[in-house]
Amino acid sequence: MRAVYWKKGSLFILDQTVLPLKVRWLRCSKVSEVCHAIKVLAVRGAPAIGVAAAYGMVLSKRKEADAKSLKSSRPTAVDLEHAVDFVLSEIRDGKSALDAARLWDKANTKKCKSISERGANLIKKGSTILTHCNTGFLATNEYGSALGAIKEAAKQGKEIHVIVDETRPRLQGSLTSWELLRAKIPHTVIVDSAAGFLMRTGKIDAVMVGADRIVKNGDFANKIGTCSLAMLAKECGVPFYVLAPMSSFDRKIANGNKIKIEIRDSSEILGKAFKKTKALNLAFDVTPSGYVTGYVNEFGVFRRIESLWKSTKE
Amino acid sequence: MRAVYWKKGSLFILDQTVLPLKVRWLRCSKVSEVCHAIKVLAVRGAPAIGVAAAYGMVLSKRKEADAKSLKSSRPTAVDLEHAVDFVLSEIRDGKSALDAARLWDKANTKKCKSISERGANLIKKGSTILTHCNTGFLATNEYGSALGAIKEAAKQGKEIHVIVDETRPRLQGSLTSWELLRAKIPHTVIVDSAAGFLMRTGKIDAVMVGADRIVKNGDFANKIGTCSLAMLAKECGVPFYVLAPMSSFDRKIANGNKIKIEIRDSSEILGKAFKKTKALNLAFDVTPSGYVTGYVNEFGVFRRIESLWKSTKE
Repeated sequence: MRAVYWKKGSLFILDQTVLPLKVRWLRCSKVSEVCHAIKVLAVRGAPAIGVAAAYGMVLSKRKEADAKSLKSSRPTAVDLEHAVDFVLSEIRDGKSALDAARLWDKANTKKCKSISERGANLIKKGSTILTHCNTGFLATNEYGSALGAIKEAAKQGKEIHVIVDETRPRLQGSLTSWELLRAKIPHTVIVDSAAGFLMRTGKIDAVMVGADRIVKNGDFANKIGTCSLAMLAKECGVPFYVLAPMSSFDRKIANGNKIKIEIRDSSEILGKAFKKTKALNLAFDVTPSGYVTGYVNEFGVFRRIESLWKSTKE
Repeated sequence: MRAVYWKKGSLFILDQTVLPLKVRWLRCSKVSEVCHAIKVLAVRGAPAIGVAAAYGMVLSKRKEADAKSLKSSRPTAVDLEHAVDFVLSEIRDGKSALDAARLWDKANTKKCKSISERGANLIKKGSTILTHCNTGFLATNEYGSALGAIKEAAKQGKEIHVIVDETRPRLQGSLTSWELLRAKIPHTVIVDSAAGFLMRTGKIDAVMVGADRIVKNGDFANKIGTCSLAMLAKECGVPFYVLAPMSSFDRKIANGNKIKIEIRDSSEILGKAFKKTKALNLAFDVTPSGYVTGYVNEFGVFRRIESLWKSTKE
């Protein structure tokens, strides 16, 4: 199963707004439909958004304008920009948009497979891994990043248990739980605020998360709650790993303070009944690099961001 | 407004399972109805539960047996035991149950007023206070503990802003928001996992929470998420205060490891649709005393638990 795929002139998107209760596919034949699917989180997760946007460019009749619309459909994940720019540059080089999108898609899958294998090596037999949001195939199209590594470790017979943050307000933990049920991997869902107590009482052996944008100094944006987890992990002596393909890295931004954080509607938190109350709905937060035990990408595991930049071609 | 009151032979409980969308009063004329109201969280918050249980004893026809049922209706908050034992001992001394319950109720209000005033002194003008769960009059019957202090500070013209954790899974943050709206105090609701990022980026000047049971070494049980907040506050250099009346203190338990933590139904987290998934629904967690900047009770503000025990009569 994949989160998005191209077939006979249309982009098919597995609608993550109705999962896990329903499996429904959206068929997009216009760029505007792809933008909408990204905005409402029908497709989500930085790498999966990237792949969707690459195919979105195939549907485009006005490449430059549509590239802009696609890129601005969500501001925080950098894969979106990278994927769209890749397709544009391939077109300029004489390739077809579809060939370019397929190339991006295939390369992305290969990266995620590599990340999953490298990440799995960090997981000890019998350990309990905490993860946040969803970073499985739903978020990356195939394999996964953090959840990819977790699934790979289970596949290798490591007898792990997964603690799944429910991930308010959009409850992407239910997507993770759905993937883990499908893969028959034992897991337990918790409210996000319980993570600290479980770490404090020695119930968690490692935390693994994805990233939407990792910048030059190693600070990174990811789903709201990630920064809390990183600080809690440090306080409790639990290793904290960030897993993401190179397409989620952004050397052009110097540090985390400069990452644009998407603010979504209050009603995602409060529901529609609480009209008089205000909520601050930050979709992401920024975790300082000092809290990261290791960055995992398709090139390896890096304890320090400097060594990652040195040993990876951009 | 009060969370519970006695009138003409019945105990009236403001039903917090339907607040803030509806204001509905439950009329209890049997002990079993009071136990049920406590179990389903129609009345919640350690001191308010204590007052409800004290009046519950008035409805009792078999004092010893009903005392047991009331005490076991929820395991973590110690006020419940203290209130019931108080009524029992007053009865043994020849007082009527109603006089005893009224005495407990009145004393509780006086304590909460004192805590609110002492706590307000800790709040600086123009500051932003983060609070978790609900610790206002709904949780204590009158005034409040942490939220009592926050309201008192606002009343004194300190121009504060309150950050309200939504407090999954039962969303008691909506009760806090409702109380703050009524008191016209500016506030913003956030998902629980956003607290760390706000502390990290300097948006929070102090964290104030209540407690369900504070034990001999100063460790304390409170709503799930409190332990995370305490660790995050330490990591970010934000003062962390615990506010609770002496009735929430329990010198008989040596340390936090020995506090019984209530585990509630999975469906509170997952809803009823996710039958195949397991959730761990810890209603409370335990915060080690080392993370507490100050304990506030009706006798004062104490930096160390030892000085609290020294200067308070049990």
